[in-house]
Amino acid sequence: MDKAAPAAGAQVPAPPSPRRRRFIAGGAIAAAGGVAALPGAARAAAPDNLPQNVPLNVPLDVPQWMREPGAGFLNPPYGLPSPFEQGVVRKLPDAPSPFPTATRTPLQSLFGSTTPNGLFFERHHAGVPAIDPAQHRLMVHGLVERPLMLTMRDLLRFPAVSRSHFIECSGNSMAEFKAPGKGSVQNIHGLLSGAEWTGVRLADVLREAGLRPAAAWILAEGADAAAMTRSIPLAKALDDALLVYGQNGEMLRPEQGYPLRLLLPGYEGNMNIKWLRRLKVGDAPFQTREETAKYTDLMPDGTARQFTFAMGVKSVITAPSARQVLDGRGFREISGLAWSGHGRIVRVEVSLDGGRRWQAAALDGPVQSRALTRFRFPWVWNGEEAVLQSRARDEAGNLQPTRAELIGRDGRNSIYHYNAIQSWKVAADGEVSNVHV
Amino acid sequence: MDKAAPAAGAQVPAPPSPRRRRFIAGGAIAAAGGVAALPGAARAAAPDNLPQNVPLNVPLDVPQWMREPGAGFLNPPYGLPSPFEQGVVRKLPDAPSPFPTATRTPLQSLFGSTTPNGLFFERHHAGVPAIDPAQHRLMVHGLVERPLMLTMRDLLRFPAVSRSHFIECSGNSMAEFKAPGKGSVQNIHGLLSGAEWTGVRLADVLREAGLRPAAAWILAEGADAAAMTRSIPLAKALDDALLVYGQNGEMLRPEQGYPLRLLLPGYEGNMNIKWLRRLKVGDAPFQTREETAKYTDLMPDGTARQFTFAMGVKSVITAPSARQVLDGRGFREISGLAWSGHGRIVRVEVSLDGGRRWQAAALDGPVQSRALTRFRFPWVWNGEEAVLQSRARDEAGNLQPTRAELIGRDGRNSIYHYNAIQSWKVAADGEVSNVHV
Repeated sequence: MDKAAPAAGAQVPAPPSPRRRRFIAGGAIAAAGGVAALPGAARAAAPDNLPQNVPLNVPLDVPQWMREPGAGFLNPPYGLPSPFEQGVVRKLPDAPSPFPTATRTPLQSLFGSTTPNGLFFERHHAGVPAIDPAQHRLMVHGLVERPLMLTMRDLLRFPAVSRSHFIECSGNSMAEFKAPGKGSVQNIHGLLSGAEWTGVRLADVLREAGLRPAAAWILAEGADAAAMTRSIPLAKALDDALLVYGQNGEMLRPEQGYPLRLLLPGYEGNMNIKWLRRLKVGDAPFQTREETAKYTDLMPDGTARQFTFAMGVKSVITAPSARQVLDGRGFREISGLAWSGHGRIVRVEVSLDGGRRWQAAALDGPVQSRALTRFRFPWVWNGEEAVLQSRARDEAGNLQPTRAELIGRDGRNSIYHYNAIQSWKVAADGEVSNVHV
Repeated sequence: MDKAAPAAGAQVPAPPSPRRRRFIAGGAIAAAGGVAALPGAARAAAPDNLPQNVPLNVPLDVPQWMREPGAGFLNPPYGLPSPFEQGVVRKLPDAPSPFPTATRTPLQSLFGSTTPNGLFFERHHAGVPAIDPAQHRLMVHGLVERPLMLTMRDLLRFPAVSRSHFIECSGNSMAEFKAPGKGSVQNIHGLLSGAEWTGVRLADVLREAGLRPAAAWILAEGADAAAMTRSIPLAKALDDALLVYGQNGEMLRPEQGYPLRLLLPGYEGNMNIKWLRRLKVGDAPFQTREETAKYTDLMPDGTARQFTFAMGVKSVITAPSARQVLDGRGFREISGLAWSGHGRIVRVEVSLDGGRRWQAAALDGPVQSRALTRFRFPWVWNGEEAVLQSRARDEAGNLQPTRAELIGRDGRNSIYHYNAIQSWKVAADGEVSNVHV
């Protein structure tokens, strides 16, 4: 017999937990009977048709879906969410555009630290190419000893690694430089997603090619109609860069670069070149459009900061968040995401009063480097106005700035790398909105 | 400026890695020019149309998909895999059935340790009910102080936890008790998947209800037409059981129990009641059909072993695996999955000669308890016949048995809890098949 199976019927007391003690001590759970034993507000929020007086020791009336056989297997057999979840989708910007170039992830509807592939944000510059993986090639040339022309089958023969990392568009949250956006957390911060990626170490491929001594930068080019190109410092290429073909267990999705993308953990999304077809090794940056006219940070003195690759330490409360309405007083969990382009998140704090007092939130583990980290904080809402904030700190010692600190440092001319603390105002009627405090 | 951004252009040597040294020392990478610099077999496997003589310092002809704008955003906007991946789907059994009740996960096509929700295996007893989450209720009654009737909104107000766990059908691999199956690893072992689950601790809900002193078992009932019921020992309920509404970041899929399922980490799939509607606390097991007539293990002496909950320690090589054909000699990575219902996987070993010699495989981290763990082992195939095996050991000290050991212990009458070492024979022509050695 296998060891360590719990003895059937043996009663094991739940381990005491500081967090649970706080939860109970906070008065969140009333010791009343029946439905009233729920957190107070949950009862207030219960729909009118909840049978509050049903004798609770016998089953309810059997619902319709127990009276008839359920649906059979799908054809085609690739599964989809429930029709009741059809509102949980990626979203175009509210303002209509003849050339939309991005959709945003519904952060307010997600749990844990994974973004399902069907909800991963999109940003592309010339649409999504329909690439036949059998025809796709990756060329490696320039300052190398042995130029390579690799098929997907070649790349699948290399040793593989799987790692969880976020990708955030450099322009995520950009409107907040100006004024508080009126949309949801999806509208404001939804150019952010995370996944478990699988692929080949770029360092392994470069070793196959053999770097020449002058090698210092690599041009990465996509096979879309924009031929998106960026310059990658060799240090990053040899550190943790991956050539990725897998996303959350399956092949990359078309809008994420199928069949191959570059992954530079923690670097601005635009550099993680999708539909990757070419790597050219050089001795200097290639000064492409996307790192000169675009994706540089315009400073107050009129100069532009170039090559600001890593995304700053950042966090945002996703529940509750803007456009939601609290369904009554009492206990609820404040929850959100934290991430940093500089390594692991080591601490997230939550403020209920616009940043005067801060308390540590719990982090879901295992916390991984340059990956989305879910934080949680228990809260009993007393029905009064509140301003909810979160701030994150990473293992490199970076602390997420206030909006005033960020603008004091970088001004308001830039549209990239906005990572200031987000403030959500909870009104006395429970309505949540985006404010700058 | 943020700290810890690598200095642009600085060259950082890749850290030496024992695994990488072995990979190179094994002769996998030939130091030849151009395409020949690939692992030998990869070149042999290259399609005929690979332009081997193209001047490699200039781009190839621009492919068609760079000459025209790509596709726009999807409507509906929930994303799907590339049409080139339409063969990567869940599969019904090969033998036609008037009442199919399961589909299997394409383990041979997956990477890392996550199963995408659209590929998560299915097993149900009366089809998939279409449950309106606003109408769904969870009743908690029996030996409790305060019976509860909970809405989904109530449950979403409780503190949440997210954890990665596998689910395996108790009858997974059952045909291997008899004779080696002729299908793929999907056919043979595909009633296995893993996900990041989010939900409420069952212990928290039971604390709300208040357990009476005699409480020892819990009946869990599903809201499908089968009204699936199983008895859960209280020890497990208070240990790590979850009431789950989230799967890989989004709401549970319909075929996984939308909007609510029980999750008993490491326990046989059938006990993780889907479409959960009722928990009745009692002082003894409820002896339902699914734990008496079914899901008991018939022993050689004619008795039946009841309440064998935890799935045994197990592993399987997914690449290469049955029905695949190696595309030439040379380097390739052997890769597979390991898991145990008793805790963390601590070691996986691979044999290339049918179990005579064993070598340690590398484990993808972070290794989590009762979760799928990816293992990898570098291999240079010399073109000779080989029998590939993997065996896993868990933190409770269980070692995956050989088939002879398993049958010697439990006989061949049972159809549940098959966890023997899998053997894949590689023929000299590269064909891989399932054998019992």
